[in-house]
Amino acid sequence: MLDPLPVKGVRFAAIEAGLRYRDRPDLLLIEAAEGTAVGGVLTRSAVPGHPVPWCREVVARGRARAVIANAGTANVFRGEEGDRAVRAEAKAVADAIGCRMEEVLVASTGVIGQRLPVERIEAAVPDLVAALAPDGIETAAAAIMTTDTFPKWASRRADIAGRPVTVTGIAKGSGMIAPDMATMLAFVATDALLPAPLVQRLVEEGADQSFNAITVDGDASTSDTLLLLATGKAGNPMPQSADDPALAGFRQALFAVLKDLALMVVKDGEGATKLVEIRVDGAESDASARRIGLEIANSPLVKTAIAGGDANWGRVLMAIGNAGEKVDLPRIGVAFGGFPVARNGGAVPDLDEAPIDAHLKGREILIEATVGIGPGKAAVWTCDLTHGYIDINADYRS
Amino acid sequence: MLDPLPVKGVRFAAIEAGLRYRDRPDLLLIEAAEGTAVGGVLTRSAVPGHPVPWCREVVARGRARAVIANAGTANVFRGEEGDRAVRAEAKAVADAIGCRMEEVLVASTGVIGQRLPVERIEAAVPDLVAALAPDGIETAAAAIMTTDTFPKWASRRADIAGRPVTVTGIAKGSGMIAPDMATMLAFVATDALLPAPLVQRLVEEGADQSFNAITVDGDASTSDTLLLLATGKAGNPMPQSADDPALAGFRQALFAVLKDLALMVVKDGEGATKLVEIRVDGAESDASARRIGLEIANSPLVKTAIAGGDANWGRVLMAIGNAGEKVDLPRIGVAFGGFPVARNGGAVPDLDEAPIDAHLKGREILIEATVGIGPGKAAVWTCDLTHGYIDINADYRS
Repeated sequence: MLDPLPVKGVRFAAIEAGLRYRDRPDLLLIEAAEGTAVGGVLTRSAVPGHPVPWCREVVARGRARAVIANAGTANVFRGEEGDRAVRAEAKAVADAIGCRMEEVLVASTGVIGQRLPVERIEAAVPDLVAALAPDGIETAAAAIMTTDTFPKWASRRADIAGRPVTVTGIAKGSGMIAPDMATMLAFVATDALLPAPLVQRLVEEGADQSFNAITVDGDASTSDTLLLLATGKAGNPMPQSADDPALAGFRQALFAVLKDLALMVVKDGEGATKLVEIRVDGAESDASARRIGLEIANSPLVKTAIAGGDANWGRVLMAIGNAGEKVDLPRIGVAFGGFPVARNGGAVPDLDEAPIDAHLKGREILIEATVGIGPGKAAVWTCDLTHGYIDINADYRS
Repeated sequence: MLDPLPVKGVRFAAIEAGLRYRDRPDLLLIEAAEGTAVGGVLTRSAVPGHPVPWCREVVARGRARAVIANAGTANVFRGEEGDRAVRAEAKAVADAIGCRMEEVLVASTGVIGQRLPVERIEAAVPDLVAALAPDGIETAAAAIMTTDTFPKWASRRADIAGRPVTVTGIAKGSGMIAPDMATMLAFVATDALLPAPLVQRLVEEGADQSFNAITVDGDASTSDTLLLLATGKAGNPMPQSADDPALAGFRQALFAVLKDLALMVVKDGEGATKLVEIRVDGAESDASARRIGLEIANSPLVKTAIAGGDANWGRVLMAIGNAGEKVDLPRIGVAFGGFPVARNGGAVPDLDEAPIDAHLKGREILIEATVGIGPGKAAVWTCDLTHGYIDINADYRS
C-alpha cells in the first residue's frame, strides 16, 4: 500500500491512553488549521452513540479545528454520563489547542454500553497535542482499529483551477458494517479551499458511492461517522458551485479515496475471504438498483454460496425478488465474472461451468444482475460469509 | 410429538416419484371433499416460482379439491415451460380425481432454476390417487422435506357452536426462511364449515402471528405457500362473521397449529442450536413492534452472540436502532430470560450475570425489549447463527 500523503494544515497524533486495549495506541487526535470547513455523514441509527449528536451539531455549523477519536469503548447508551464525557473530551482538546469546544469533533468505537474512561483521555490530551505532526498518519489509522486486521488509509492528488490539492483519509471498520454507515469511522482531510456547504455536499455524494454502498453483515452500527475536513491551505480559487468544472478532478480524487477506504473495510470484513462486487442495471432508478444490490449483498444464502465457490444464481434471483423493487421476471439476467448464467428469465442452456468455477475460486468476485425495467444502475460491495465470521462474533463482547 | 389427527373430508398420499431425491417419498397429494373452501397466503417475492401465481388464482376463487406438492425442484425461473408444467400437474390430478384443473393447488420446493420433471409427476398420479387415505399424514409431511431434519405436523381440536372440529397441518422449511413466508410450505386442513372469505381472513391473521413472525436467515424465498382447506364435514353452523363468538375456540386452535408449525420450522433452522423468542413492547404500533423484533431477529451479530451464549445487549440495542422505527432512547430496556440487563436508557448497574449466563446456555432463549413510545407489541422467533449454517449453505446447490 502506498504511503499516505500529508495534507497542508492538518496534523496527527496517536497515543496509548490505556482505555481498554493494552500495548497499542488507542487515542487519535487530528488537528486542522483555523478556517477549516467541515462536512459529515453520520449514522441514522435511532440509538446513536453519544458522540454522534455532538458531531451533527458541529458539522451543521460547518467549522472544525480537531477530531478526537478513541478505540475500545463506543460510549453508547450511557445516559447523561455519556453526553458529559463527550463534552469533557471536546473541552480538554479545545483548551489544549486553543479553539472553541464546538469546533472539536468527537468519535468513539468499540464496545457498546460500557463507561468511557474520559479522565484517561483528559490526562492524555497534553501529550497528544505535543506529539502532533504532519506525518504519522499510519499510526493514527492504527489507533482507531478494533477488529480490523490492518490499518486503513488512502490518498490522492488533484488540482483545482491549476492549484495542486491533496486528499488523505483514514478509516476503521470490519464487522457491524452496512450502509447508513457502520462502526465505521472515516476521517478525510484535504487542503482544498471549499465553502462548508460544498464540503457537506461532496461528502454526502461521496458517501453514497462508497460507504453507503458496502455491507459486511447488514448490521449498521450506532456510531458511524464520516468526516471531511477542508483546510483551504492549497490556496485554490474558491469554486463557485458544486458543478464548477474546476472541481471535476478533485471530486474524482475524493471519491477515489472514499472508495478505497470503503473497499478496505469490506475486504477486512470479519471472516471475509473474498471481495464481492455486485452490479445491478435495468432498474427503475439508481436508488432502486442500489437497494436490489444491497439485498443481494446482504443475503446470507448468497454470501455463503460465494464462500463455497458456488455459482448459485438461484439464490441471487431469490434476493432480487425480495428487494421490494420493480423487476421484469422474463427479462432478468445474472452473470458471474462476466459469464451469463441466467438470461431473459431462464437458465442459460448448456452452460460451460469451467470458467465460472475458476472465477469463483478467486478472491474478487463479480456478480451482475439486470432486471429489465429502466435505466437505473448501481454497484455495491460486500464480502462472503464464512466460519471466520462466526468465530469472531460468537466471542467478541462488542 | 403427538400423532397428527385425521380430518373429515381430507385424504393424503405420498409416493417416490424420483424427481430428484432417491429412496424417499418426494411427491404429496392432498385430496379434499367437494365443497371445500380454501384460503392462502403466498410469497410476495417479485420472482415467484411458477406454482405461485397459479395458486393465487385458485385461492382467489375460494374453492379447492386437491394440493399436489413435490420436493427437490422448486420450478422457479423456467419461463413458459415452468407455467406449462404447473398446468400439466393440475390437469393430471384433476383428471384422476374428477374435479376441475382450477381446483387443484400446486406447490414445489427445492432447487431454483432447474427443470421440473413433470412427466414423472404425471406418471405417478394414478398410484398417488390409489393410495389416498385419511391417515398417512406423517408420510405426507416427510414427502415435502428438503433440508428439514424432521417432518413437521401439528393438530388441535376445538368446537364451533358445540360441534367438534379438527385442525391438522403439515409444513416444511428450515433454510431460506423469513417473514413474507419462505420456502416454507404449509398445508393446513380442517373439517370446519366456513365461508371462503372467512377462511382467507383466518389464514391471513394466523400467518401474521406465526409464519410471518419467524425468520431463520432473513432470506424469504420465491415459493412460500400457506394454504388452509376447510372441508365443512364437521357440519357446524356456518359462522356469521369473523367476530362470531362461536369461532373463538377454533381460531385459537388454528393459530396454535400454525404457531406450532412455524416454531418447528425455526427450530429446524439450518445450523440452529437455540430457539430465540424476541418480545418487543412499547412500540408505536404492533406492526412497528414486529419490525423492531425482526430487525433484532435478523441481525447476524445478535444471532452469533446467542450462539456463543453471550448476553450481548449492545448488539440488541444496535439492532433496535436500525429498525427505522420510533424509539425513545432514555426509556429503552432489554432483558434476557426475564433478567433486565439494560433499563431506562442505560446498563443495569452491578448486574448479576450468573442467572443470565445460565439462561443463555439453554436451548430456548427469551429476549425482551421495550422501547418507550406506545402500546405496540409483538413476538417473533428466530434461531442462532452458527457454523452449522455455514456448513450447510456453502455446499447445498439450492
